[in-house]
Amino acid sequence: MTRRLVLATRNAHKVTELRAILAAAGLGPDLDLVGADAYPEVPDVKETGITFAENALLKAHALAEATQLPAVADDSGLCVDVLGGAPGIFSARWAGRHGDDRANLDLLLAQLADIDTPHRAAHFACAAALALPDGTTRVVEGRLHGTLRHTPSGTGGFGYDPVLQPDGDTRTCAELTPDEKNAISHRGKAFRALAPHLMELLG
Amino acid sequence: MTRRLVLATRNAHKVTELRAILAAAGLGPDLDLVGADAYPEVPDVKETGITFAENALLKAHALAEATQLPAVADDSGLCVDVLGGAPGIFSARWAGRHGDDRANLDLLLAQLADIDTPHRAAHFACAAALALPDGTTRVVEGRLHGTLRHTPSGTGGFGYDPVLQPDGDTRTCAELTPDEKNAISHRGKAFRALAPHLMELLG
Repeated sequence: MTRRLVLATRNAHKVTELRAILAAAGLGPDLDLVGADAYPEVPDVKETGITFAENALLKAHALAEATQLPAVADDSGLCVDVLGGAPGIFSARWAGRHGDDRANLDLLLAQLADIDTPHRAAHFACAAALALPDGTTRVVEGRLHGTLRHTPSGTGGFGYDPVLQPDGDTRTCAELTPDEKNAISHRGKAFRALAPHLMELLG
Repeated sequence: MTRRLVLATRNAHKVTELRAILAAAGLGPDLDLVGADAYPEVPDVKETGITFAENALLKAHALAEATQLPAVADDSGLCVDVLGGAPGIFSARWAGRHGDDRANLDLLLAQLADIDTPHRAAHFACAAALALPDGTTRVVEGRLHGTLRHTPSGTGGFGYDPVLQPDGDTRTCAELTPDEKNAISHRGKAFRALAPHLMELLG
């Protein structure tokens, strides 16, 4: 039986990406994954948590409660060592306004302009949360470690993808194919780690 | 005998502030403190360090070498707990361009807009370094702990002063008199800790 699962995002990139990840985990045929745009009456939740896991749980829980459907949410971001882990949970609003990818990336590069490559280690982190209407929740995490370039490169992906070069690769995340990226990405890892919980709780 | 001491800054606020701090430490009459503006031919050093102490030492050392005079430098910044210590060494260029106080402060407030007061702990940190032309160096640190307001208040000071409320006070740093601020500030503490080294090495 197909179960509807709501993803707490209005970012179409993320819906597409998650659909591919769940399909690769063998969950595609069983789940009808829709973005939160399908429920325009549900207000966005204020992300008041101070960790990725807290914010992912806040978002999944609020959406499950409002729709009375199982809901999945993620909170992801870029953690830069020399910034003590920032932008972190503030990645999407780093330049002050939510979701302006290019402004966020340009600001980060300007902030780090004087920092040489040996000190440019960073990782993407993702917490993926599942919440059921009855209040049951699960949360898992994934990471992708790499180094920040001085200039963006590549047109794939979104967010900070054009500036993070994964360890062991010579390309940025924005130069990987979607399949290559999902295989190693923080979101891929987190959602694959969430798959058994989806099977357990929705199966 | 009056000894000339060069301060590695082109920020007139900082020269005035340091002069007051050294005078209060009893060092006023012995030292002729001038800003780096008195040596326009000396280029600014690139702040490639990743700690306040490293950058303060870099600046003091470069200035002492170029002027063949004892040189003092500080590197200070605002460290926000929920940002893992950022802006930190990037405080003065947080909005991407060096020294735009208002843009830096506005950006920080926008980034933290959803963060409630219990999670808004922050501190100012300052490393103060002394370098002699012969290569001798000293570096000390000072901190001022407090909480970030949601909106700026006060017209004194500079930088992030209008948003940090020191622990135990109800005003922001920008609402303190210069004397009140120097008595508790990170820079006041750091430079008072540097005073005995100045006496030892320049006495």
